[in-house]
Amino acid sequence: MTPPTPPRTLWLDDRSRVMTLDQTRLPFEQIVIELDSQAACGHAIRTMQVRGAPLIGAVGAYGLAFALRSDSSDLGLQKAFEALLASRPTAVNLRWALTRVADRVRVLAPHERAQAAWDEAGVICEEDVTCNRAIGVELAALLSGIAQRREGADGRALDVLTHCNAGRLATIAYGTALAPFYLLERISAPVHVWVDETRPRNQGASLTAWELGQSGVAHTVIADNAGGLLMMQGRVDAVIVGCDRVAANGDVANKVGTYLKALAARAHGVPFYVACPTSTIDLQARDGEAIEIEARDGRELSHVAGRLADGSRAEVQLVPDGSATFNPAFDVTPAALVTALVTERGAIPASGAAIARLLNTRGQG
Amino acid sequence: MTPPTPPRTLWLDDRSRVMTLDQTRLPFEQIVIELDSQAACGHAIRTMQVRGAPLIGAVGAYGLAFALRSDSSDLGLQKAFEALLASRPTAVNLRWALTRVADRVRVLAPHERAQAAWDEAGVICEEDVTCNRAIGVELAALLSGIAQRREGADGRALDVLTHCNAGRLATIAYGTALAPFYLLERISAPVHVWVDETRPRNQGASLTAWELGQSGVAHTVIADNAGGLLMMQGRVDAVIVGCDRVAANGDVANKVGTYLKALAARAHGVPFYVACPTSTIDLQARDGEAIEIEARDGRELSHVAGRLADGSRAEVQLVPDGSATFNPAFDVTPAALVTALVTERGAIPASGAAIARLLNTRGQG
Repeated sequence: MTPPTPPRTLWLDDRSRVMTLDQTRLPFEQIVIELDSQAACGHAIRTMQVRGAPLIGAVGAYGLAFALRSDSSDLGLQKAFEALLASRPTAVNLRWALTRVADRVRVLAPHERAQAAWDEAGVICEEDVTCNRAIGVELAALLSGIAQRREGADGRALDVLTHCNAGRLATIAYGTALAPFYLLERISAPVHVWVDETRPRNQGASLTAWELGQSGVAHTVIADNAGGLLMMQGRVDAVIVGCDRVAANGDVANKVGTYLKALAARAHGVPFYVACPTSTIDLQARDGEAIEIEARDGRELSHVAGRLADGSRAEVQLVPDGSATFNPAFDVTPAALVTALVTERGAIPASGAAIARLLNTRGQG
Repeated sequence: MTPPTPPRTLWLDDRSRVMTLDQTRLPFEQIVIELDSQAACGHAIRTMQVRGAPLIGAVGAYGLAFALRSDSSDLGLQKAFEALLASRPTAVNLRWALTRVADRVRVLAPHERAQAAWDEAGVICEEDVTCNRAIGVELAALLSGIAQRREGADGRALDVLTHCNAGRLATIAYGTALAPFYLLERISAPVHVWVDETRPRNQGASLTAWELGQSGVAHTVIADNAGGLLMMQGRVDAVIVGCDRVAANGDVANKVGTYLKALAARAHGVPFYVACPTSTIDLQARDGEAIEIEARDGRELSHVAGRLADGSRAEVQLVPDGSATFNPAFDVTPAALVTALVTERGAIPASGAAIARLLNTRGQG
C-alpha cells in the first residue's frame, strides 16, 4: 500500500495499524513497515527506522496506545511509558509525547484508556501537520515575494538552498523547511532546490533528495562546499533551514554547517529563513552560547554507508587508521544573520523582543 | 624501499628509475611504483596514480627523458612530447614541464639529449622543492608570530585549519599549504591541524590526513561543515590553503569550499593565508570573475570509494537515482578576505599593486 497524498510519513491502515517507512533503508529501498504493538513501535524508534523529533514522538504515542490495549492498568501504563522512553532516552519530543498521552488517559477508567490514547496520538499527529503546513504557507508567501521582486519576471525558477533534512521524513507530513515545496501551487514561480549533501550523515543527499524526488520537486544535490560559490554567482534566491533549538535571543542551533551558509547568505544579500515551530524555541537558553553542542561518534565521519553496484548495502572507511576525527553535530547561527524565524504563527525577526512578543512572555529587557 | 627524509613524493633509485607512490591506493595502501619508461610515466599520469600540478609536470619531464633514451631524433622527441601531453591534456603544468625539457634538448645533438632531459627533469624537481620549502619557512614564521601574540604563552598547540591537499603528495616535497608542518622546528609552539574532509573528492580525509600522519603531525579530520563552529569557539588560530590560480588583483581560485572558510575566518578575525607559488599567479586573469570554474562529473559526489571491512576497496552510491547533481571543482575567494599571499619570495598583501610589485610588472593603475 502506498502513502496518502500529500505524502505522509506516518499513516493508519484500515485495520488500525500504524504504517511508516523504514528510513534506514532509504534512499535506495522504500520499505513500508507496519507497527501493531508497543514492541514494534519501540523497536522502530530504537533502531532509527523512524527519526526526526515529531515522528519519534508520534510513534511513541501510538506505542503507548497499543500497550493499553492489552494492559490498561495503572501499572501497565507506567511500564509501557518507561519501556518506550528507554527506546531513545535523549529524545525530548518522545518524552513530551508520552507524557501528553499518559496524562490524558491516567484520569480515565482503564477500559477507556486504549481508545483515548489512540485518539490523543492522532491529535498529536494532526497538530504536527497543521503546524508544518502553516509554516509552509508562510514560507511560500515569502518565496513568492522574492520571485515578484526579482528584475525581469522571466519565468526563471526560484533557486532555494537547504541544508540537512527538515522535511516530511522528520515529521508526519510537510516537514518544516521543506514544507513550501509541498505547496508549490502557492509560490508564484517555478522552484528548484539546491540540496546540501550534509556531511557527515548525508541527510540531504539521501533523505531530502529522496523525498523531493518522490514528490516531483526539481532539485540538485551539491557538496556542502558549493553553496558559497553558488551564492557568489547569483544562483541562490533564498536559504531555508530547519532548527534543533532556538535561543531566547533568536540564535539558532541547527545541523553543523548551517552557520557557514548563513555567513555566505549575508555576504551576498540572500534571505536566510529558519523554519521554526514555536515548540523549538527554548526560553531557558538565553543565547547560542547556552546551547551545548553535542559531539557525535567520529565513525559517522570516518565511514560512510551506501549502495554497492550489486544493490547491496555496505559501509566503507574514508579516513586512514590513526587519524583522529571530531564530529560536532550542530552549530549556532547568530540571530543577526537570520532574516526571519518562520513559525506556525507567522514570520518574525530573530530577536529576543519579537520572540517574547510572539510567545506572549515578558522580554529580557 | 622507503622514501627519503624529509619525505619526497618522487625520488630516484640507484638504477635511475623514478619512484613514486600510487596515490589511487592511498590512504589504505602505500604502494611504491617504479617508472622506467615513457609508457609507464604516461600511464601513471593518465590513471591518476600521480596527481597535483608540480608532480604531474615532473613525471612528464622524466617520461620525456626515458623516451629519448630509445629514440633521440627530432621526430622521436616530438612524438613523445605529444603522447605524454595527451595523458592529461588539460594539465597546464604538464605542458609547461614538457615544453621546458623539449626546448632545452632540441638545440642539442641527439646523443646528448637523453642525459640533458634527465638533468632538466631533476632541475624542475629541485626548483619545486626549493620553492615549497621557502613558502614553508615563510608560513612557519607567520605561525610563530601568531603563537607569540597569543595571550598567555601557555604551551597550547596552535590550531591551523586547512582545506583539500596542498601537501607534499601534490608536489615533489613539502607541498605548499602543508609545508610549515614539515618544518615544525621553526614554529614557536606545538601545532595541531584541523583537516577538512574536502568533499566531494575527500582529498583532506584521505591524502592530507595520510601524509600528516606519516610524518607524525598532530591532526584531526573534520567535516567541511564544522569549520565555522570551530572558529566561533576560538579553536582555530589560522587557516592555510593552497591555490589553483590567483588573479592579477589577488582573487584566489582554490578547491570548492575555500570561500566559505574565508568568510568564517573574516567573521572571527582568524588570519587566512594562501600558499601561493608565484607560478600560480595568472596576470591574464584580471580578477576572479575571469577564472572559469570547472564543473566535474557528478559521480564524484553521488558515489564514494573507500575500504570495506575486509580490506578491499569498493565504491558505494550515496545519492538516489534520479536526483541531479552539480559538482563545481573550485570557488573564488575575493582578495579582500585573504590576509596574505605567501609566495616563495615572501608574504605579500593580496592586491593588484603588491602582486605587480612582486612580479616586477606594471600595475593596472
